[in-house]
Amino acid sequence: MTFAPPPAARPGDTLDAVATPSLLLDLDAFDVNLAAMAAFAKQKGVALRPHAKAHKSSVIARKQIEAGAVGVCCQKLSEAYPFAAAGVRSIHISNEFVGADKLAMAVELAAHVRLSVCVDALPQVAALGDAAARAGVEIDVLPEVDAGQHRCGVTNEDALLALIDAIHAQAALCFTGIQAYHGGAQHIVQWSARKEEAQRAAERTAAYVHAIEARGIACGIVTGGGTGTVEFDAASGVYTEVQPGSYLFIDGDYGRLDWDGALRWRHALFILSTIMSATRPGMAVCDVGLKGLAVDSGLPRSVRWLHASDDAPALAYTSANDEHGMLEAGTTMNMSGAIGARLLLPPGHCDPTVNLYDQYVCYRGDRVVDLWPVDARGLSR
Amino acid sequence: MTFAPPPAARPGDTLDAVATPSLLLDLDAFDVNLAAMAAFAKQKGVALRPHAKAHKSSVIARKQIEAGAVGVCCQKLSEAYPFAAAGVRSIHISNEFVGADKLAMAVELAAHVRLSVCVDALPQVAALGDAAARAGVEIDVLPEVDAGQHRCGVTNEDALLALIDAIHAQAALCFTGIQAYHGGAQHIVQWSARKEEAQRAAERTAAYVHAIEARGIACGIVTGGGTGTVEFDAASGVYTEVQPGSYLFIDGDYGRLDWDGALRWRHALFILSTIMSATRPGMAVCDVGLKGLAVDSGLPRSVRWLHASDDAPALAYTSANDEHGMLEAGTTMNMSGAIGARLLLPPGHCDPTVNLYDQYVCYRGDRVVDLWPVDARGLSR
Repeated sequence: MTFAPPPAARPGDTLDAVATPSLLLDLDAFDVNLAAMAAFAKQKGVALRPHAKAHKSSVIARKQIEAGAVGVCCQKLSEAYPFAAAGVRSIHISNEFVGADKLAMAVELAAHVRLSVCVDALPQVAALGDAAARAGVEIDVLPEVDAGQHRCGVTNEDALLALIDAIHAQAALCFTGIQAYHGGAQHIVQWSARKEEAQRAAERTAAYVHAIEARGIACGIVTGGGTGTVEFDAASGVYTEVQPGSYLFIDGDYGRLDWDGALRWRHALFILSTIMSATRPGMAVCDVGLKGLAVDSGLPRSVRWLHASDDAPALAYTSANDEHGMLEAGTTMNMSGAIGARLLLPPGHCDPTVNLYDQYVCYRGDRVVDLWPVDARGLSR
Repeated sequence: MTFAPPPAARPGDTLDAVATPSLLLDLDAFDVNLAAMAAFAKQKGVALRPHAKAHKSSVIARKQIEAGAVGVCCQKLSEAYPFAAAGVRSIHISNEFVGADKLAMAVELAAHVRLSVCVDALPQVAALGDAAARAGVEIDVLPEVDAGQHRCGVTNEDALLALIDAIHAQAALCFTGIQAYHGGAQHIVQWSARKEEAQRAAERTAAYVHAIEARGIACGIVTGGGTGTVEFDAASGVYTEVQPGSYLFIDGDYGRLDWDGALRWRHALFILSTIMSATRPGMAVCDVGLKGLAVDSGLPRSVRWLHASDDAPALAYTSANDEHGMLEAGTTMNMSGAIGARLLLPPGHCDPTVNLYDQYVCYRGDRVVDLWPVDARGLSR
């Protein structure tokens, strides 16, 4: 029995007709962000390998590649499948993995795309080398170094050089460079402090590159960096490739950062929500909560009326239940007239918010123009 | 081109062979929880209408109904579709909704199941009555009263009676009772304080029931309550129907509550995760973060080794990135030997965590015995 909810939106619909909650993508803003990063990377002479964990959509990956990206990053092996299926030919897994389930995916992917992966421990290299050799595939391997994130990555040069020796000892593996990503630096609010932390990360990374070259080994690729630090990463002379993801969308967290450089971003991602209850003075309830908004980086920092009227009060989104968002007007006015009104909410954190939805409802002005699948949604293995 | 990740698990696999991260359901514990609530409701003479927003699985809904439940609750209309498709014949939407997209779903559902819904404003009643009459369907309507949650629901008797009059004026709508749910009361840690708050909610609800009956109107159903207060709700003499959801799983938040009554619950839901990096003393990194664990109610409060050894340190899950979980051992030991080890993590909040996965990997002992779809995942409209 096929019995499923009707489509949330169709091209040509106005935003008033889109079912809520929906994940809205403002294509005018998206186009600006997409083009700005592509032009920036080209001008600075760094390869652009956007992080697909932010958008999880093969449609968006293809647009990034058409605009000049060399391929994409994925954070998990399973996440890479829809991109490989859609014709993306170069995928970097910017993460470590272990276990038979992961090795099986790695060799399957490597039979379809140019695959590179990260390692930070010798057993990972040995297992991957064995699996790749048995499968008859070749995999590029980039040891990860800890550039200040203190998450994954080797913490000293001896460990790095031992990994490179181990990669060289595996016929099916190819050492192509290193990864150095400092996630924490991305989110420092003050521009100058963010610059300093990014420069420290670049200095740590440069020391690792020098240690490799001192052994007479070429370190072709130095990949890392993100939306928050990309101007510093590109200027460092250390990174050959940058991995920004959130620049397409700019969420609440990135939106609150200082941006004092050449690049300016536009908010492109919103949750469309409807007020469905308002029984108390100055309060209203909308139809998106924890299941439609990731709150790990905070609640939506602004609430925009889809149709603002002169007497529409400013609203604050003050708490989230599973399927309810609490709104406060800061007045004691009766809000019952707002039932049925629609709101645009920028999510606090784009990546895990996108991962809650199956599609982007893409719009220009007040019209839906396309629906793009979030085809890597839920692929966290 | 069909190119997709391999299955995460197959019946008969040991938990060592299950791809990670996966959503694990311990069926021995689940069976105990399922039976305990069914027996409790039967003994107390209250109808059991479990909340399907917690599990989002038609397989689980059918098991609840086989055990005696009268139907299920859903929080959203779109969420109800897989349950209707699977043969659940009575569905209560425990929430308000407005808009043409919602009305279309309501009347479609009402053509397939006995549908009841909540209202707390007159325009909701008028729109629903018109839509139901046009579609030739009948819908049961339960005004929601604010029992202390201060979210949705009318806040005074006049508003309630006006809603009932409006429902009576609609030929296609049937007033069958009221909903009174106090979500905040569910999570009060101390048993006696939780009891007091539940009793206050029941008193508020009783006053509304009396106001209805004083008008000579029968209030057949009083639905509400949840896992945390169900013993008090059932004892109140006010509620005719209870809506617990989390009792099947017991998450970190419910697990930390005092349980001094007749019912005892078992943790049944876990995320299976693998340690994939450990380059710093006393630290390790596992492969589940924000995209596999909802953190709104806190991080996992415990970390269990799938295979504990005598020298395995106690671990704490201390922070989550998108796809990484940071683990601290509280020692300075070298943790690299733990790479590849598997962990069981109880999520802090079951509902939004389940909503991140497409299936339950159901196990008994150390063997996978079944895979159940989360077929209402993402259905938040």
